[in-house]
Amino acid sequence: MTLESLRRDIDRIDARILSLLDERLEKGLLTRRHKSGSLDSGREAEVLGRVSARSRCLADEAFTTGLYRRIMDESKAIQDRRLSLIGFQGMHGAYGEAAARAWAPEAATMPFGEFSQVFDAVLAGDVDYGIVPVENTLGGVVGQVNSILVTTELRVAGAVDMAVSHCLLAPPGADHRELRTVYSHGQALSQCRRFIERNGLEGVDWFDTAGAARMIAEERPKGAAAIASRFAAELYGLEIIKDGIQDSPNNRTRFFVLAKEARQATNGPADGDHGRAGDDGRAGDHGKAGDHGRAGDDGRAGDKCSAVFFADDKAGALFAVLEVFAEAGINLTRIESVPTEPGDYAIFIDFAGSDRDEAVIKALDRAGGLSRGFRLLGCYAERRL
Amino acid sequence: MTLESLRRDIDRIDARILSLLDERLEKGLLTRRHKSGSLDSGREAEVLGRVSARSRCLADEAFTTGLYRRIMDESKAIQDRRLSLIGFQGMHGAYGEAAARAWAPEAATMPFGEFSQVFDAVLAGDVDYGIVPVENTLGGVVGQVNSILVTTELRVAGAVDMAVSHCLLAPPGADHRELRTVYSHGQALSQCRRFIERNGLEGVDWFDTAGAARMIAEERPKGAAAIASRFAAELYGLEIIKDGIQDSPNNRTRFFVLAKEARQATNGPADGDHGRAGDDGRAGDHGKAGDHGRAGDDGRAGDKCSAVFFADDKAGALFAVLEVFAEAGINLTRIESVPTEPGDYAIFIDFAGSDRDEAVIKALDRAGGLSRGFRLLGCYAERRL
Repeated sequence: MTLESLRRDIDRIDARILSLLDERLEKGLLTRRHKSGSLDSGREAEVLGRVSARSRCLADEAFTTGLYRRIMDESKAIQDRRLSLIGFQGMHGAYGEAAARAWAPEAATMPFGEFSQVFDAVLAGDVDYGIVPVENTLGGVVGQVNSILVTTELRVAGAVDMAVSHCLLAPPGADHRELRTVYSHGQALSQCRRFIERNGLEGVDWFDTAGAARMIAEERPKGAAAIASRFAAELYGLEIIKDGIQDSPNNRTRFFVLAKEARQATNGPADGDHGRAGDDGRAGDHGKAGDHGRAGDDGRAGDKCSAVFFADDKAGALFAVLEVFAEAGINLTRIESVPTEPGDYAIFIDFAGSDRDEAVIKALDRAGGLSRGFRLLGCYAERRL
Repeated sequence: MTLESLRRDIDRIDARILSLLDERLEKGLLTRRHKSGSLDSGREAEVLGRVSARSRCLADEAFTTGLYRRIMDESKAIQDRRLSLIGFQGMHGAYGEAAARAWAPEAATMPFGEFSQVFDAVLAGDVDYGIVPVENTLGGVVGQVNSILVTTELRVAGAVDMAVSHCLLAPPGADHRELRTVYSHGQALSQCRRFIERNGLEGVDWFDTAGAARMIAEERPKGAAAIASRFAAELYGLEIIKDGIQDSPNNRTRFFVLAKEARQATNGPADGDHGRAGDDGRAGDHGKAGDHGRAGDDGRAGDKCSAVFFADDKAGALFAVLEVFAEAGINLTRIESVPTEPGDYAIFIDFAGSDRDEAVIKALDRAGGLSRGFRLLGCYAERRL
C-alpha cells in the first residue's frame, strides 16, 4: 500500500460519502409531504440511537453522533427553505438535470431511475415538477415519455429547448494519449460515432451518461473516459478533454416541465378541469419556481401550447383538426403521431400562442368537437438554451 | 413514497455513511507508515478543494467543507493516538475481529479481503499484527492459512482459542415466523445444518458471515436472516433471534496473532535471526498491545510454543524430532502435517513451554539438528475465551 494508493482510496470514499449526503438530504426533502413540520424529535432520537449503536469501530460514538447532529440540522434547514422540487430521470449530472437547473435555478433537483417514476412523483405530490425529454433533433421522439404523456393527468407547465454538447471527460491528470475506451449511454455514443472512430476509441454502453462520468471519476479504470455533460464534469471533478464532440452541430433536446396543475388557467372545451390552477398561474404553494420559465430575459421563445388527441378511424379526422388551426392562422410547430393500440394512434401538436388568445380559445373549442379525447396539455413559455 | 419507506431509505444511507467513515479513518491510519506526522496541510487543502468542487447539489459547499474539517480533525486525532493495528480477514463483525478485540481491546482492527493480504500487511509494516484462524474443532485446519505459515517470515506473538457461537440474526421488528432463508458463509451454514433443517429454512451461501449480517441489515430482504457473531449483530443493529445455534456445542476456533518480530527473544538453533526483538518482548514501537495476550487474568492458558519443520525423505525424521520432545518431557499439544510439494510436507507442532525454559531451549537445539528447516514460529501466551 503506497501513500498514493491509500489517498486514491480515500478520495473514492469521499466521493461516495458526498453522494450519500446528497441522497440523504434529498430523502429528507421528500418526507415533507408526510409531515406538518421539519421537526420530529422522536425520529431524531431514533436516528442518533442507531448511529451510536453502530459506532463500534474507529468512528466512535462521540464523533459520529456529533456529525449526525450536524447532518440532521442541515436537513431541517433545507426542509425549512421550502424549495420547489423538480424530478428528473437519471443520476446527478444528467442532461435533464442541467435543463431543470436552467429552468429553475433555485429549485432542488431530484433524481429518479425511470421516466414513469418522475410522472408518478409529480402526481403523488412528492415533487412539484418533473422534467422529461420529448424530442431530440438527432434521436427523434423519446417514445417512452410520449406514451406516458398520451394518458397522463399532468399538465405541461414549461419547456426547455437545450443544445446538447457532449464532452469527452477523463480523471484529471490522466494521459490523453492512453485513452482506449469511452463509456456513455448508447444514444450519446451514437451521436459521437465519427469522433470515436476518428480517435480509435472503443465505445462501451453504460446505462446513463452521468453514471458513466461518475464511474470514471470513482473507479478510474485505466485508459478510459466518459461522454457526458459539462455539468457532469463539474459535479464529478473530471477534466473536459474536448467539448462539443457530437458529429452534428445541431444536437438539441426539448424537455417538458410537468406539473399537477397548469401554470395558466384557460377555458378550453375538452379540458374542463384544468381551471383549478390559481389565477396567478402558480402551481401549488411550493411555487417559488413557478414562473421561472417566464423570468429569463435570455432565450425566451414566446408562448407555446401543446395538445394531444386521438385520430379517429375516419381518415379525415386528423385533417379536420389541422384545418381548424390553419383557418385560425395558428402556426403549428410540431406534429407527431404516437401509436397507442393496434390501428389507433395519438397525435401530439404544438402551436404558437397562448390560451389567453381569443383565436386559440375558439380553435381549441372547435378541435375538441371534431376529435376524440382532445386535451390541451398546457400553454407555457419555452426557453431556448 | 410513504414516510416509512423514505425513513427506511435514510436508515440504509446512514448505515453506508457510517461504514464509509470507518473505512476512511482506517485508510488514514494506514498512511502513518509513509508520513512523519499526521499533519499534511497540502493534502488537507487538496481534499477540501475536491469536496467543495463536488458540492453542487443539496449538500452545499459550506455544509460539506464544515463536515470534512471535522472528519479530517478526527482522522488526525486518531492517528496521533498511535494505536496498535491488527489486521484480520473479512468484514467488520467477523469472528477474527472479535478474537482480535479480545486479544488487544485498545488496538484498532483493520479488515482485509484475503488471508494473504493480512500476512502482507504485517510484513510491510502497514499493521503491527495480523490475526488468522489456524484450526477449528469442527472444520479442521484452515489450509489457506497454514500453507502461508509454512514459509512466512512472521512470528507468532500470541494465540486465542475462542468458542464460536453462531447467532441467528434478523432486522429488529422482523416477524420471526416469516423467516424462510438464512444467509451465511458456507462453513457456518454447515455447522448449523441441523438447526436450519429443523426450522425449515433454506441456507444461502454468502462470502462472509459478517457480510451476510451487513447485507441483511442494509437490504432487509423479506423473510431473510443471517448467521453470524454476536459482535456482528451489535455492529449492524440486528436482533439476535437465537444464540448458539451450531449443531455441536464444541465449536472452537484457534487464532494465531502474527507479528514481524517475536514477543520474546530466544536462541533456538535453527532460528538465528529472531533475537532482534526487544528485551522487553515488545514488538516494535507501536507495541501498546504487545502484552495483551499475557495481561488477562481470565482464560490464560499458560505459555505455548509453535514450530514448523519439513519431514525428510527418511521415514524416521518425524519420529526422531518427536522423540526429542518426549525425552525432554515436553508436552506436544498439536501435530499437523501440511502438504507442500508432491511427496513433501511440513509438520506443525505446538508444545507447552516457553523459550525461557532450559529444557525447551535444549530440545529446540537438538530438533534443529535432526530435521530440515526447523523453525520456531514463536512462544506466546494463549488466551481461551
